[in-house]
Amino acid sequence: MPEIILSINAGSSSVKVSVYKTNGESGDPDPLAEAVVDGLTAPPASLKYERGEEMIKGKELRNINSQEDAFRFILDHLTKDEGLPGLSKKEDIHFTCHRVVHGGDYPRSQVIDADTYHHIETLSDLAPLHNTPALSIVKAVSALLPHATNIAYFDSSFHATIPPHISTYPIDQTVARKNKLRKYGFHGISYSFIVHAVSTYLDRPKDKLNIIALHLGSGASACCIKNGRSLDTSMGLTPLAGLPGATRSGSIDPSLMFHFTHEAGMPSRSSSSELHITQAEETLNKKSGWKSLTGTTNFGLISSSSEPECQLAFSIFVDRVLNYVAPYFTKLDGEVDALVFAGGIGERGARLRKEVVNGVRCLGFEIDDKKNEEPEDAVVTDISAQGARFRTLICKTDEQLEMARGVLEERDRFGGKG
Amino acid sequence: MPEIILSINAGSSSVKVSVYKTNGESGDPDPLAEAVVDGLTAPPASLKYERGEEMIKGKELRNINSQEDAFRFILDHLTKDEGLPGLSKKEDIHFTCHRVVHGGDYPRSQVIDADTYHHIETLSDLAPLHNTPALSIVKAVSALLPHATNIAYFDSSFHATIPPHISTYPIDQTVARKNKLRKYGFHGISYSFIVHAVSTYLDRPKDKLNIIALHLGSGASACCIKNGRSLDTSMGLTPLAGLPGATRSGSIDPSLMFHFTHEAGMPSRSSSSELHITQAEETLNKKSGWKSLTGTTNFGLISSSSEPECQLAFSIFVDRVLNYVAPYFTKLDGEVDALVFAGGIGERGARLRKEVVNGVRCLGFEIDDKKNEEPEDAVVTDISAQGARFRTLICKTDEQLEMARGVLEERDRFGGKG
Repeated sequence: MPEIILSINAGSSSVKVSVYKTNGESGDPDPLAEAVVDGLTAPPASLKYERGEEMIKGKELRNINSQEDAFRFILDHLTKDEGLPGLSKKEDIHFTCHRVVHGGDYPRSQVIDADTYHHIETLSDLAPLHNTPALSIVKAVSALLPHATNIAYFDSSFHATIPPHISTYPIDQTVARKNKLRKYGFHGISYSFIVHAVSTYLDRPKDKLNIIALHLGSGASACCIKNGRSLDTSMGLTPLAGLPGATRSGSIDPSLMFHFTHEAGMPSRSSSSELHITQAEETLNKKSGWKSLTGTTNFGLISSSSEPECQLAFSIFVDRVLNYVAPYFTKLDGEVDALVFAGGIGERGARLRKEVVNGVRCLGFEIDDKKNEEPEDAVVTDISAQGARFRTLICKTDEQLEMARGVLEERDRFGGKG
Repeated sequence: MPEIILSINAGSSSVKVSVYKTNGESGDPDPLAEAVVDGLTAPPASLKYERGEEMIKGKELRNINSQEDAFRFILDHLTKDEGLPGLSKKEDIHFTCHRVVHGGDYPRSQVIDADTYHHIETLSDLAPLHNTPALSIVKAVSALLPHATNIAYFDSSFHATIPPHISTYPIDQTVARKNKLRKYGFHGISYSFIVHAVSTYLDRPKDKLNIIALHLGSGASACCIKNGRSLDTSMGLTPLAGLPGATRSGSIDPSLMFHFTHEAGMPSRSSSSELHITQAEETLNKKSGWKSLTGTTNFGLISSSSEPECQLAFSIFVDRVLNYVAPYFTKLDGEVDALVFAGGIGERGARLRKEVVNGVRCLGFEIDDKKNEEPEDAVVTDISAQGARFRTLICKTDEQLEMARGVLEERDRFGGKG
């Protein structure tokens, strides 16, 4: 009998739920519907819903102010949708998958019970800005769907294979061990999808696949993938390190914030008794990045604008991306199956791809302008120029599907309550 | 008539003075003697003195506790040395050159007058740990040698050519402009020497010279030099960013220190009313790096040890260096005249050079093991393997000589009081 899987991705101002159905065979689960509530931090919230050809876009919602409210609303909407006959009551849901940013030392997804929940809560001290939205959903879902198997997927797990000489910070090792300070890396659910998709596309076994993957969105990172596993990535202890993002500075001089404000170490306004965030962390995560350079978080606008600030922000981003592509190329000893662009900007930013690839042309990358500007509508698209020594690909990454697929792949480990 | 030039380099626990004489012709000034007082922070201080064949090594000194004491002692020693007939009294000194780490927006060396001194003092807020020792010497020298022309050479000036899309941090631009927060870069006096030396060695005009230069010592940095000018470098607002050093972390997640201690933003014990240093800056500059991994600041020991902590520290350093070599290669579009190793570790660390070059072998670098292990005793040595696509060089950098040479090159700009 088919089972229903919900993949849930909660951000600070949105909740996205994708509905899948197992199809009784091996392979990917079938997507049934997708619901997104956003605007939680800038009410009124609004709903976007898609099921097959059906589409609701921008429906304004009242009294939806939290991740929990949003999830309840979506759950209600799904069970009442007559176009989803397999999901007419809460008990029809067998699995829920939760994207959790920071998973500490967890090398893989975990069924959430009281112990796991508590442990994830503890971990969240390392990345309070990032884990908190997911945790509040996890709590709500456990209460609302007690019969379902709830599974946490961590953005950090994919990077558990990074070796110590890359993950260790050269700082006091007693404190580092005690406070668990090391490079963790993030966007791992996306990188896992990318490995699967590119391996299939190139017909090359995952454990032989060497790629330089760029997940470029409002949060952006790079990953060096050797034999299908993470060897290095640009994010660090938290998602702040590495590339800049929409409101995130990326790597800067570690002493900069103490010259930015005398209150760097003071609690930010977003802090609470559970949530410890310094002003520095708030500024660098929420008030920096290309928003601070241009006034907009929309990289598409920045990319097409001739305003000097936009040109500067664009060039900064290209420069920082290139700072990772080249070393990852050498870490793979030049044996690279592909340079892969993914994420909102990676998938839609033709000009960005063009300039990044141009920046590593001396290594043997080159794109076909036409393929780059009008890529096919496929999960993986090759945009390399004819005769280029190395491939350049676009991959439409899908973290929701990757989590749902994980349920099928690891059924035995997860068990299931039904 | 020959003139006497002193090149002065003051660190937190040492003062080094090199004595040169102009030789009436164009070209480098003649080195006469070199005096180093070290151990200022771990008394008793000791003197090392070299003049021609004469050598004093490790002479213990009493009551020498500050940079100023050390300079007075050295001055006294020099004027009393009968082997230095041209320097028998203070008035024989025409020029003093001071290495100053942070020069803010100064694109070149500056004659120090009251205004300049005050401006350098202000700048030092950006790098109090680094500029303070030099400032206390500058003050002492101005008082002791009022007849001499005192010139400040900045480690940052060489990098004034870095373009905005590389030097701008993606942070609030109002604060960035107000507090002068950008990438400055350091080790510029050394990079300037390296450009001169390699250009001479390769018989290639400076303004056509493309090199990837590594100044690796207890402080370490990398520089991408295009057409003889700095295009990018690994250090940032302060020398903390980029590569790790003996006691310095290098780049880490900018939020790390707030997870290291709740007192990251509090004043450190080294702070005073003039010197504002946070605990985070003190920890990251003075209590991190390979000392924190291995217990020693001696990279030679680390390099030859089989202890796991030493192996880890060594591999971390190689990894971080490689993170700069490859992107600088692509920023030069693969048109690279040489990869250049300099600084204490760069010049003596055969194993380090071997592993770094091996890490970029796929780009076309390869060294000759014999030449690498027993390099010639020359300013520049080629250690490339026969047939390697790109050259690898060792350059014995000499910041003291570079400053003294600057006096001759820019005589007209500096004037001179004599």
